[in-house]
Amino acid sequence: MEYLLTPMSEITNRITALQQLMQHQQMDGMFILQRADLFYFTGTAQDAFLYIPVDGPPLLMVRRFYPRARAESAIQDIVEIPSVKQIPRIIIDRYGTLPKICAMELDVLPVKDFRFYRKLFNTAKTVDGSALILKVRQIKSAYELDLMENTAARSAQTFEYMKSIISDGLSEMEFAARFEVFARKIGHAGHLRVRHFQSEGYAWHVLSGKNGSKVGLLDSPASGEGTSPAFPCGAGVKRLKTGEPIMVDMAWMCNGYHMDETRMFALGSMPPKALEASGAVREIHDAVIAAARPGVAIADLFDLSVRMAGGMGYADQFLGPPGYKVKFIGHGIGVELIESPIMAKGSPFILESGMTFALEPKMVFKDEFGVGIESVIQVTRDAAVLISRVPPEVFIC
Amino acid sequence: MEYLLTPMSEITNRITALQQLMQHQQMDGMFILQRADLFYFTGTAQDAFLYIPVDGPPLLMVRRFYPRARAESAIQDIVEIPSVKQIPRIIIDRYGTLPKICAMELDVLPVKDFRFYRKLFNTAKTVDGSALILKVRQIKSAYELDLMENTAARSAQTFEYMKSIISDGLSEMEFAARFEVFARKIGHAGHLRVRHFQSEGYAWHVLSGKNGSKVGLLDSPASGEGTSPAFPCGAGVKRLKTGEPIMVDMAWMCNGYHMDETRMFALGSMPPKALEASGAVREIHDAVIAAARPGVAIADLFDLSVRMAGGMGYADQFLGPPGYKVKFIGHGIGVELIESPIMAKGSPFILESGMTFALEPKMVFKDEFGVGIESVIQVTRDAAVLISRVPPEVFIC
Repeated sequence: MEYLLTPMSEITNRITALQQLMQHQQMDGMFILQRADLFYFTGTAQDAFLYIPVDGPPLLMVRRFYPRARAESAIQDIVEIPSVKQIPRIIIDRYGTLPKICAMELDVLPVKDFRFYRKLFNTAKTVDGSALILKVRQIKSAYELDLMENTAARSAQTFEYMKSIISDGLSEMEFAARFEVFARKIGHAGHLRVRHFQSEGYAWHVLSGKNGSKVGLLDSPASGEGTSPAFPCGAGVKRLKTGEPIMVDMAWMCNGYHMDETRMFALGSMPPKALEASGAVREIHDAVIAAARPGVAIADLFDLSVRMAGGMGYADQFLGPPGYKVKFIGHGIGVELIESPIMAKGSPFILESGMTFALEPKMVFKDEFGVGIESVIQVTRDAAVLISRVPPEVFIC
Repeated sequence: MEYLLTPMSEITNRITALQQLMQHQQMDGMFILQRADLFYFTGTAQDAFLYIPVDGPPLLMVRRFYPRARAESAIQDIVEIPSVKQIPRIIIDRYGTLPKICAMELDVLPVKDFRFYRKLFNTAKTVDGSALILKVRQIKSAYELDLMENTAARSAQTFEYMKSIISDGLSEMEFAARFEVFARKIGHAGHLRVRHFQSEGYAWHVLSGKNGSKVGLLDSPASGEGTSPAFPCGAGVKRLKTGEPIMVDMAWMCNGYHMDETRMFALGSMPPKALEASGAVREIHDAVIAAARPGVAIADLFDLSVRMAGGMGYADQFLGPPGYKVKFIGHGIGVELIESPIMAKGSPFILESGMTFALEPKMVFKDEFGVGIESVIQVTRDAAVLISRVPPEVFIC
């Protein structure tokens, strides 16, 4: 694997798109420091601060480590700063003045950090820049789609590998860890990026038998059991058993771009009820993809999925048990595992060409099992197509 | 492994300790929601809000999922809330009034969330409660020390296992993934908790040969190479080679409690220069432990380590290359991988009985390799002792 560098044209296009949005919002400048945003707009994830003025060239100030940021980023103007206290002086040197209306990533920046920077920049007014950042990131370029396809190919290999190792008696967590070894060998970064501070991303949401019906802390139809009350979600110590439905939800990051895919597995067989439900989520999955194209409202796709589930007699199971249903069927995906837009009930977003989603219709059969399917799709100029390369099937091993 | 529940006496003691500190700071109440803090003060990590009044019983409001929170937590008063909007009404019901001076975790709470809650609670004054939370967490109870020793025993088994699989030609990342399989089989949660939103915790800081000298984004003497500019730290694609120094820094979480340990490995042999330096960091490690006891200033321990390194001729290498040295030799550890107090230069903290630290003297030989050792220690009533059970040796395999 090569150590892939983000091309200058990508960086320029992204920054230009952001500056156009900033202009409409009357922002004078934006500071970007969160790791995924920084990587997206600069090509480097070193410890650094990106300043983007509403027009003119951006400036990357690197705390640690300048030589690597220089080698990785296509940004022209990069300086080393031993301390963040030098930022105001450098901004004034370059741009003549500090921004009067200054945007920062207020959806991730903790209050304590924010207060420090606000004082440091002596800002007249600070506004939230994150909505604009997330809006630019919604539309993937051909280069980004290539990277996502690259991740998808590796993920498909990993699902193939799962079939060869899944076996009766293996614990959920050991199964998960073993397919992760394979994944890391072929490029998995061993880490996922999630935006909100309360989201603890992990790659191995393996829920077997009854664990697939366990509701928990996650905003997901089922949370699974996990290994202890300290981390009560995802794969646990329960052993996989012949004949039970096994939901494998695995996430990837490779070269900074994520995949998030779910398939049903079973050893020998699974109960007809679970097999039928797996067919039903597949139908919903296919119908949403068939209906998706630029101009379609996300809210309508959500309603379509709920209507279909109800029509097939799964109103109680779809998206979780009654009283604990989640209100989305998918989420944007890119340099973060979960990003805007969410395919949520009542969403105001309209599909646009270049958007990518992890579409995940799932069901919970109370005290029995969970079923689901999840694929990553891309909205093209006139349709929606799969980026995922994992066959959309139930894997009976 | 049993699904371990935190005893009521632990929860009561922790909350009482926090309330005493709150009293001194004139806080009326504190809201706690961050996952590690919530687990520490309640025993559950479900999606919930803990309210602690300055005196009287606490109240746990659970968004998702009440039955599990009820089963996991020793808190008496637990209620289910379908929406956070009900919090103010419930607080008024229970306590007669909303807190006038209200503490929240402002070191982790993003500005956007903070503004939402501040408005919701209609708070007269919001203050940062995190310093008090971290102060209570500094002192580990016998119960917590037991859990840390339990994690330490499993970590020691994992280091033993590493010796059996390390081999020439294995990539850093594959080596890391393979020992993680073993670790997860014996109780590793597959996740670490780190507090700051810019810290991306991972268990597998494997730095071989030159990668051990690579400075990068981490506030650590060496960051390693990583897998791409998107995640440029930790284990990478480089293959392990006979004769080179290999630094293995592995972190654990089990039942919510962390370990963080580093040992040097080599296949066949390592250069005498690296072996000597490994002896030097071991000497510093041992001397700091020998000097540590209640009443000793952390700043003095830091100075001792720097003085020793200088005396042995390692002034340029110790804690990183000139110009990029880190300013700490260790950090508190418990329900988060890195917690207060940091064993930092000029630290105002004085050692107290019950504090636990990951002590990690490390050196970087520019463009050559890195060496280091890291063990978790506990301050007792009159000394400091190892919690770590990994032999403090260089492993030649």
